[in-house]
Amino acid sequence: MKRVNLHEAASLLMENDRFVIVTHANPDGDTLGSGFGLLRALKKLGKTAKLVNEKPIPENFSFISAQSDDFDSGETVIAVDIADKKLMGELEEKYADRTLLCIDHHPSNTGYAQNLLLFPEAAAACEVVFLLIKELGVEIDSETATALYTGISTDTGCFRYSNVTADTHRYAGELIERGADHVKSDTLMFETKSMSYFVLQRMALEKMEVLFGGKVAVVSLTKKMFEESGADESCADAIKSIPRQIEGVAIGVTLREDDDVFHVSLRTHAPYDASEICRRFGGGGHARAAGCEMKLSEEKTKQELINVLKEYFQ
Amino acid sequence: MKRVNLHEAASLLMENDRFVIVTHANPDGDTLGSGFGLLRALKKLGKTAKLVNEKPIPENFSFISAQSDDFDSGETVIAVDIADKKLMGELEEKYADRTLLCIDHHPSNTGYAQNLLLFPEAAAACEVVFLLIKELGVEIDSETATALYTGISTDTGCFRYSNVTADTHRYAGELIERGADHVKSDTLMFETKSMSYFVLQRMALEKMEVLFGGKVAVVSLTKKMFEESGADESCADAIKSIPRQIEGVAIGVTLREDDDVFHVSLRTHAPYDASEICRRFGGGGHARAAGCEMKLSEEKTKQELINVLKEYFQ
Repeated sequence: MKRVNLHEAASLLMENDRFVIVTHANPDGDTLGSGFGLLRALKKLGKTAKLVNEKPIPENFSFISAQSDDFDSGETVIAVDIADKKLMGELEEKYADRTLLCIDHHPSNTGYAQNLLLFPEAAAACEVVFLLIKELGVEIDSETATALYTGISTDTGCFRYSNVTADTHRYAGELIERGADHVKSDTLMFETKSMSYFVLQRMALEKMEVLFGGKVAVVSLTKKMFEESGADESCADAIKSIPRQIEGVAIGVTLREDDDVFHVSLRTHAPYDASEICRRFGGGGHARAAGCEMKLSEEKTKQELINVLKEYFQ
Repeated sequence: MKRVNLHEAASLLMENDRFVIVTHANPDGDTLGSGFGLLRALKKLGKTAKLVNEKPIPENFSFISAQSDDFDSGETVIAVDIADKKLMGELEEKYADRTLLCIDHHPSNTGYAQNLLLFPEAAAACEVVFLLIKELGVEIDSETATALYTGISTDTGCFRYSNVTADTHRYAGELIERGADHVKSDTLMFETKSMSYFVLQRMALEKMEVLFGGKVAVVSLTKKMFEESGADESCADAIKSIPRQIEGVAIGVTLREDDDVFHVSLRTHAPYDASEICRRFGGGGHARAAGCEMKLSEEKTKQELINVLKEYFQ
């Protein structure tokens, strides 16, 4: 593996053709924004290119999609926003070991590609793709701008996460200037929720427990609640942020029932270290967001957590 | 009234002292961010200054507050983010007619001040204050940067509204570079809600009605719900955005019971014009957000609205 700079990465793209842009499994705005943004830029250079994912692209991202070319041999493989080849999912076997270039922002990138363009301080892979397209000298049209903007906004919680830098906003500004439809993107990505989500949220709030004088809030999502609400996994992800949003709550806990296990998600405010707590149960993550699993009943899972949280609040 | 540019506005500040910075009633992040940002800058110039509001500053804005000087005569009055002198509330009588300079971004500014620095394309008054402080040549420290960032983020719904421009993001980037604590600001302004809010929201979702095949969602907030939840007006404001967030809903309606009237809030997606609908009932507003009042019972208020909405959906 060779770390390359923007100029070297641009040369690799100029020298090749028939690009397969691989996006990661369970695709998000950043891998798809990067992929479709790059696809559009390569086509403007007269190259042939297609974007692939192990599954069909979710419908809610159709506003940033672009037409792939149709070919199946002599491919040059580019990976976008993929820190580890395992994250290619079912496409790993076909593409991972012949990835010419990986464009990424994850400090944890495993270096599986032959060439790696990695800006670990970037909030989104789309920031890196934006700089790369500028390096290529390709005009960024409004569709490309909207795709790249969407990756930046979704990977930063619409500019709220601590990964946001001055450059993040600068690039967003430049993309809006180039015609990014930020209102459409934000409306679809942040202001649209399914009715099932609201039903699940209502159920979750109804049985939320507040402990340790309001410092800890615990929400439990059972299989029965998913069945009754019709909600899916993406709804559960959105609910995980709620307990910590409550004024005074320092640690928000969300339990989600799976076949024979409860997935536990912790979100904290400083100084409480979610990762430290989850490691006690064999899990891990970041300081403000971490997770673990427990093969116990709902009540016993809660009790185990409470026993550990007691150390912090008593 | 004279329209002034940045240079002229800066001269007015340099030539005077003992500034009273007036903020608008029911203060928000923009009027307070502008006020406290300007206060800090004036003090760095060796000036005497204080910020005033008709009521004590709400506790949740304490993270951007700054110490006012104590004086009560020979004052130079500056108004920030105040489009109409009536919005000074109880302070109108004392200050409005001797306002030397108004710094604003509302196109509707009535021109009550002797001098008006108005950038109608700015998303927030804090954008104008930022440019003015730069014009003054005063260093923007991290506290000032946090205050100005907060005005920009709150007046744009954290960069989601259609008033956001390329410059909005550029200024946010510059402020982060100067040390704005955007994570603290965003957490306090957007990621913290009272338990009462969630209780009121749960009640609202329980009795939400969905009409016209999912195109219209109606939420009703009664006095009884406020009493039972302990929620206040700010909670009601946050709930108004929910009905329109539901996938497929084009018009979100929120009714709020007052003493002898129901306040109706409409939020729409294009092409439905909220203002046009509300004008039918003597109200008004913007295309995507408007309001009106009806002196009717809850059921009759709903019926009146449904009768009008029928025209759009049948």
